[in-house]
Amino acid sequence: MFKKIAIFGVGLIGGSFALALKNAEAVERVLGLGRSTASLARARELGIIDEIATSVAEAVRDTDLILVAAPVAQTEAILAAIAPYLQPGTVVTDAGSTKSDVVAAARKALGVKVAQFVPGHPIAGRELNGPDAAIADLYVGKKVVLAPLAENTPQDVARVAEAWRQCGAIIHQLTPEKHDCVFAAVSHLPHLLAYALVDDIANKPHADLLFQYAASGFRDFTRIAGSSPEMWRDISLANQTALLHELDSYLVQLTQVRALLAVGDGPALEAVYANAQRARHNWIKTIEAAEKPEKQGGD
Amino acid sequence: MFKKIAIFGVGLIGGSFALALKNAEAVERVLGLGRSTASLARARELGIIDEIATSVAEAVRDTDLILVAAPVAQTEAILAAIAPYLQPGTVVTDAGSTKSDVVAAARKALGVKVAQFVPGHPIAGRELNGPDAAIADLYVGKKVVLAPLAENTPQDVARVAEAWRQCGAIIHQLTPEKHDCVFAAVSHLPHLLAYALVDDIANKPHADLLFQYAASGFRDFTRIAGSSPEMWRDISLANQTALLHELDSYLVQLTQVRALLAVGDGPALEAVYANAQRARHNWIKTIEAAEKPEKQGGD
Repeated sequence: MFKKIAIFGVGLIGGSFALALKNAEAVERVLGLGRSTASLARARELGIIDEIATSVAEAVRDTDLILVAAPVAQTEAILAAIAPYLQPGTVVTDAGSTKSDVVAAARKALGVKVAQFVPGHPIAGRELNGPDAAIADLYVGKKVVLAPLAENTPQDVARVAEAWRQCGAIIHQLTPEKHDCVFAAVSHLPHLLAYALVDDIANKPHADLLFQYAASGFRDFTRIAGSSPEMWRDISLANQTALLHELDSYLVQLTQVRALLAVGDGPALEAVYANAQRARHNWIKTIEAAEKPEKQGGD
Repeated sequence: MFKKIAIFGVGLIGGSFALALKNAEAVERVLGLGRSTASLARARELGIIDEIATSVAEAVRDTDLILVAAPVAQTEAILAAIAPYLQPGTVVTDAGSTKSDVVAAARKALGVKVAQFVPGHPIAGRELNGPDAAIADLYVGKKVVLAPLAENTPQDVARVAEAWRQCGAIIHQLTPEKHDCVFAAVSHLPHLLAYALVDDIANKPHADLLFQYAASGFRDFTRIAGSSPEMWRDISLANQTALLHELDSYLVQLTQVRALLAVGDGPALEAVYANAQRARHNWIKTIEAAEKPEKQGGD
């Protein structure tokens, strides 16, 4: 049970975290902070937070847990603002999509107090944003990756894990570096590819004709290109090294597939397609099997 | 009103066409033909066809309209089997995803009778196959692209268009070459890219770890990699030239985006992402506006 929690950024991610903890009766009092007074007022109206903190000092004082749920590029400034008030016994975590850069920012902003910072990344989202998009069951059955630092105490890591578990999430652990490699491959690269494809088509002289015949396959393939350009610019730059590595690997792959197509090698082309179909099918089966007991057992 | 229609291939596409025409009371008698006797029996059981044709001759004789709805690679053989029995007054159409190769096959198989062949491509589908997947409203509000030949009579083109209109479809016309360029960009290339990405990930030594953290964005992006490898091998090869052209254009685009990422050019990267987001948003708005009156006015 948490007596006091402070949330920096009361939108979809931070707001859903607060709602879930309240729903589970795992928190007594939630304070909110953020750049937009309108969002903070709305979050209080919706019962996401109990109070709008009047200062960082008030938000941080005697707080059990602080969640930073703002765009990744703001993490360092927020942690720097928190640092002077951070008391022993308070644990800080975040919800950023990249971890190596967040860890670097935390070390810079918090100094030795970085021991109290447990980096995290909930793998959940919706296509909506802001406090109105927040829902109590956003994290039910979803993964939360914690990327603990060598300096973290097991107690602090356990406390952050417990908060997410109360939200219905399943806890995973990766190093910050491994985290960033994994998400470069399965999330950041697909976003870049989808953006690049739509931009490429939009810049063609006959773009209107092309879009006229785009159908449901194209719609699904490019859905992630509907995401926030600012957010994905930040993620791309924050995870530049791993993303470049994955992009280069994919460019090699595309060049090989192009060669098969150019010589009309049907069997080899089919082998690539069939391997992909099989792998995707197995993946879908695995996640469906994993989600089932979770859904049945979840509260 | 059609007295007799013959369908070669009674699966999702051919079966839904037959069901839609029956639903609209636009046909008296539907005969089915195909490679699988089990599928034909099932199609009759489901009321998709009235009779299983005992021979190509029987299917073709005194028929108003013939739809070839088999995998594209079989088109030439089917048309060659039809040719000797094809009488004046019968019109033949197809449902293949590529058109230039189908036209070439039709010219070879039908000779001068190619005048009776009106190439077509319904832009509709489901993730299921076979007669059991056939539904009467598959084509409601969907586009059907006809790619008429110089030899076609306006009456024959109108007859094929009318059949699809009875299914609830909206008729478009493109030349076979234009058709293939358009679908290379908005359908065939995305399929190749999705297959290539999943295959690339599946072949990495830490594939299991990567798939473990793939989430809903990845799922949508790769949905089309769940499609039939044989079918997409055939489409890729049938539309080789246009697909290579689009792939090369995309490789140039990716190389440019890679350069922006490598130098950390945030504003330029964001401009690509924002242009894509805007173009996709406008596209979605346009198709949603186009679909609305169709749904309200459709029968």
